[in-house]
Formats: sequence, C-alpha cells, structure tokens
Amino acid sequence: MTELKNDRFLRALLRQDVDVTPVWMMRQAGRYLPEYRAVREKAGDFMSLCQNPELACEVTLQPLRRYALDAAILFSDILTIPDAMGLGLYFAAGEGPKFRKPVQTPADVEAIDVVDTEKDLGYVLDAIRLIRRELNGSVPLIGFSGSPWTVATYMVEGGSSKEFARIKSMLMNTPEIMHQLLEKLAQSVIGYLNAQIVAGVQAVQIFDTWGGALSSHAYQEFSLSYMKKIVAGLIREQDGRKIPVILFTKNGGHWLEAIAESGCDCIGLDWTLPINEARARVGDQVSLQGNMDPAVLYGKPDAIRKEVGLILEQFGNGNGHVFNLGHGIHQHVNPEHVTAFVDAVHELSAQYHQ
Amino acid sequence: MTELKNDRFLRALLRQDVDVTPVWMMRQAGRYLPEYRAVREKAGDFMSLCQNPELACEVTLQPLRRYALDAAILFSDILTIPDAMGLGLYFAAGEGPKFRKPVQTPADVEAIDVVDTEKDLGYVLDAIRLIRRELNGSVPLIGFSGSPWTVATYMVEGGSSKEFARIKSMLMNTPEIMHQLLEKLAQSVIGYLNAQIVAGVQAVQIFDTWGGALSSHAYQEFSLSYMKKIVAGLIREQDGRKIPVILFTKNGGHWLEAIAESGCDCIGLDWTLPINEARARVGDQVSLQGNMDPAVLYGKPDAIRKEVGLILEQFGNGNGHVFNLGHGIHQHVNPEHVTAFVDAVHELSAQYHQ
Repeated sequence: MTELKNDRFLRALLRQDVDVTPVWMMRQAGRYLPEYRAVREKAGDFMSLCQNPELACEVTLQPLRRYALDAAILFSDILTIPDAMGLGLYFAAGEGPKFRKPVQTPADVEAIDVVDTEKDLGYVLDAIRLIRRELNGSVPLIGFSGSPWTVATYMVEGGSSKEFARIKSMLMNTPEIMHQLLEKLAQSVIGYLNAQIVAGVQAVQIFDTWGGALSSHAYQEFSLSYMKKIVAGLIREQDGRKIPVILFTKNGGHWLEAIAESGCDCIGLDWTLPINEARARVGDQVSLQGNMDPAVLYGKPDAIRKEVGLILEQFGNGNGHVFNLGHGIHQHVNPEHVTAFVDAVHELSAQYHQ
Repeated sequence: MTELKNDRFLRALLRQDVDVTPVWMMRQAGRYLPEYRAVREKAGDFMSLCQNPELACEVTLQPLRRYALDAAILFSDILTIPDAMGLGLYFAAGEGPKFRKPVQTPADVEAIDVVDTEKDLGYVLDAIRLIRRELNGSVPLIGFSGSPWTVATYMVEGGSSKEFARIKSMLMNTPEIMHQLLEKLAQSVIGYLNAQIVAGVQAVQIFDTWGGALSSHAYQEFSLSYMKKIVAGLIREQDGRKIPVILFTKNGGHWLEAIAESGCDCIGLDWTLPINEARARVGDQVSLQGNMDPAVLYGKPDAIRKEVGLILEQFGNGNGHVFNLGHGIHQHVNPEHVTAFVDAVHELSAQYHQ
C-alpha cells in the first residue's frame, strides 16, 4: 500500500499529536457542488450514481480538488443494505428515499436475509478500491454504514418519517420482532463494514441519524446495543494501522457517557452541545468529531471564521478533535464559503497543538 | 370567580403538595379525536376554527369529557401573532402552515408592528372567557404562545422548515435585523399573554419548538434571552393566585440550567433526557413537565402503563412533576389508549405523594 501522506485525521481520532486540527464534512461529496450535480445528471438517478464505481469515485474526489480536506469519504448511501435485501429502494423527486416493499409484519422480518456484501454490494467494494488507487495516499478514506436502528426506520416506515409511528408501534407491541430485524441488520453491517475495511477504507463511521428520536432507555436497547455489537465485530487493524470507529448519533448528546463505553474511538457530535461540555463528560476515553451547525456556512466568510474560532477555543488545547459539521452540509451553501471554513480550521487551530 | 375544584396542576407547577401527579397532553384537543375532526370539518379550515370562540371552546372541552385530565389548554395556534401582523397565514393541505408574505428583508422587519391583542386577537380572549365559564372551575385553563424564535422561523422561512436556511442566514449575516424582529415578537407575546391572563388563563406555556435547532450560544442569544424578557414582563398574580409559567424548548435538554434561571416556574421536557437526570440538574429551582415519548401511545395499554410507571419511578418521591408527553399527541393514536395513559398516571403516582 502507498504510504499515507496526511494522517492527521487518523491520528486525531486516536487522540495522537497533530500539527493542526483535521477537518472533513459529512456529505462533502454532494449537491452543493456544481461538478457533483453535473455527474449526478449524467448518472441518472441517485442509486445509479452509487452503483457506478467510476462515478462514485469521481464525486468522492471532487471536494478534495477544491478544499484542503483531511479525509475522503466513500460516496454511497446508508440504504444500500436494505436495497441489497431486495426491498426496492427508489428516490421520488423531492421526497427522499422510498421502499417498494416496506418491512412491517413478522413475516416480512422473517423473510429478510443477512446481506452477503461480496455478492450483493460488490459495487461498493469496487468503488473503494478505485478511490484508494486514485487518492494515492493523499488522505485517508472513510467507509460507513447506517446504524441498524436508523436503517430500520426507513425499512419499516417505507421512507423518511417525522413521527416514526410504524416502527415505534413495532417496538412497543412486538419488541421481539423489532429485535429480530435489528439483529439481522447488525449482522449485515458487520459484514459490510469488514468488507469495506478489507477493500481499503481506513476508518469507519456509523451514522445513527434517528437514534435521537428515541427515549433514553429505548435508545440503549434498540440502537446503542446494536452499534456496540457491530464495533465488537469489526476488524480493528489492517495493514499495520488501527481502523478507528466513529459513532454519530444525531441528537445523542444526552448519552455521551454510554456511547463512550461502546468501544468506539470517536463520538460524532451535532451542534447542540458545546464541545467543551462534551469533552469534560467523556474525558480521555474517546475523541470527538464536530460540531459546527451546518447552517453557519450560510454566513459570510468572516462570520464562519469567528464560529470556527469559537469551537476551537471551546475544545481548547490538546488532542482528540476532528473538526466537522454537526450534520451534512446543506444543498444551497455557497461552495466558496467552504474554502473559508476549511482554511479557518487549519489556520486557527495551530495554536492549540504546540 | 368560581372556586377551582381541581388545582393539582397549578400546585405541582409551584412544587406544592398534591395527592397524585397531575397530567395533561400537549395538543390534547386535536385530530386524534373523532369529535374534533367533526367540528373541524364544520368550521372549514384550521384558522376558522381558531377564530370562532364557540367552536374553539367546544374542542378545548372535548378531551376533558373523555379523560380525567387535570388541565384544559386553550385551543389556538402559535401563529396567531404573525397572522395578526398581516402576513397572511394559511394552511396548505398536508403541508402545514404557510405565509403569503414572509419576512425576509430589513424592510419587511421594519414594516412589522407589535400586535395589539385587544384589537387584533380579540377572538382568542373571547374564547378564553367562554372556556372559563364552561369549565366552571373544574380544572385550570392554560394559555400559551410560541416563543419569538420559533414564531420567527415560520415568518422568515414562509412556513415549516427542516434546515432553517433563511432565518439562519439572517441570524449569521444581519444579526441586528434578527434581533429587531425578535424584539417586536417578544413585545407582542408579552401583550398577548398578559391579555390572556386578564381574560382568565391560570397558567401559561411558551412553546419553543425550534430553539433546539440552534447551537448552545445561539440559543441563549436568539431564543432564551427573549423568553426571559417575556417572563419578566408577565402578570404573575391574578385573583390572588400565582400564574405559573412553563417554558418548553424541544431538544433543549442540554440547556436546563440556563432555562431554570429564566424566571419560569416549570421546564417542559421532551423524552430524550431521563427525568431523574433533569431533576438532579435543576434541583428545587423549578418544576418539570413531561416526559413520555408521544409514540408510546401506539403501544397497547399494558405497555403504556409500564412506561408511565417507569417515568414516575424515575422522578421519584416529592413534588414538582406535571406528567405530559414530550411533544404533541400524534394524529393516529387510538383515543382509548389515552384513557389507559391518563388513568395510569393517577393510579401509579399516588405512592410517590404520601
């Protein structure tokens, strides 16, 4: 394997020394970039883009050509697993993801098979190998998956949801069926992420976008416990380097202590909790990723720089901070503002790493 | 004034002794009730129902005929204020509230006048007087308003929003215009809630549905500071009784200590923070309202009862708990499940008040 030229991101995840705070953005390969929209148009629909390794590679690399980002993230979607399970994923214009065959009865859950990544999701592995070759060691590549709970919300609701009526009915009235579905998803995610690691990703993030819609005890039972199982099942070293694991539960700030006990290396934060409070609560147990409100990027460059400075100051001296947004970058952000953001992180953070 | 027969709710808000924990539900007068849907159909659109004191009174009383609730809440909407400002509120089918004239430029903000409640929102005061007469002292009546920040999100975005692109751009790039709008809203809310109190409401709740979409420092500057100003401007005693104030910031669990310093009597909680942790953090400073996930009502009666028992046990012995859902009751809940919920709160809580 080619030597890694910029390993700040991997070092910060493991709370090792860095020269400046590394930065990447969730959804950095995305619709705010005109060059992304051009490729997306060429590909046709969203899943065709995910399933085409050359195009997925191209959009993965696009933001790195514009910005001094410290990591690339595989371009894909958290719903590739249920798609591979045969549920018929499609994207209705303006409505987000939908499934032709949602999972709503005990028989539906029974009928689901754990995904065989090599067989059913080979296009993801092909994309990873291609991206690693193209990156040529410039920055590390992040792989990812949705959390079992988060992926299950889409499978059971049949798409996006605000109130989670169907899945929470399942959780309340047939918890054993809910657990059966989550267990199949957890086993699928373990296989999927391990295959990604073998194919070449150098860190993995588990996106638990909807764990924060649960009460505290339901979160522990129906989301965190499965992420814990996944972390325990992952390949944790590859090519002589540790593979760090990031857990990101949006709206999960109340549960940091429990998440820190999961075995993960880093906790992803949204923007509602000041990062100094998060750091005080988890101590040296894990590193932290975040936590700027993505909407700050609507601000002018000076205002963005001020907000970056505030978060760096809140984190303070020492290791264990990966700068990121608290959620994916919004579609209508001016791409030039991202330059101001990324550069501010590097310029303003040097003083905290002396 | 008629003597109040059941004052558990008011006593619990002020951390006084009660026989059992009082309970009401946000949006208890609402679409889950067939009798509500019948009145709504008769009224035509949603705002016509709000603006008709007889019909607003009728739907306010409906849930009290079915359930042993300890409080009534005025049937109205948090957007009556911007509607009275002339922004042209309407409800598009399946899309939520919309404004014909959103507030997006400095000139738009400049053009707004503080609302004169007596002149522009007399229908709300008429409804309050009618409801008080019909309640005849059975339970107290809650008045309410949206928080300035929350109301402003709809005014600036022109309706509901997920990403708050427009209002957060305003906040980042023209904070002085943002403050000018919030100040006009705060003055309007003070006048509005005081008129509600004079007309007869016995407690007030400020709904800050979208304060939790802000970062911690932005929440303090753009939402909490205005709610603090409102609390300071309210009539706090009427007919020899204190008028308790409840602040409810959804997703505001990280900021309880700051909210407790606002001068409010009670903090409304969503369901993401265990109520024992909330109680430990605020001590005897304020009472707490909440905090069951509204989706628990999709569960069968036994499951609902178990969850009620868990929350009561978490709160433990002593005063200062008003039981509620962590957000409004969902539309598709079976009305019979609400009976199980309300009765469980009363039956299972007696042991904690001996």
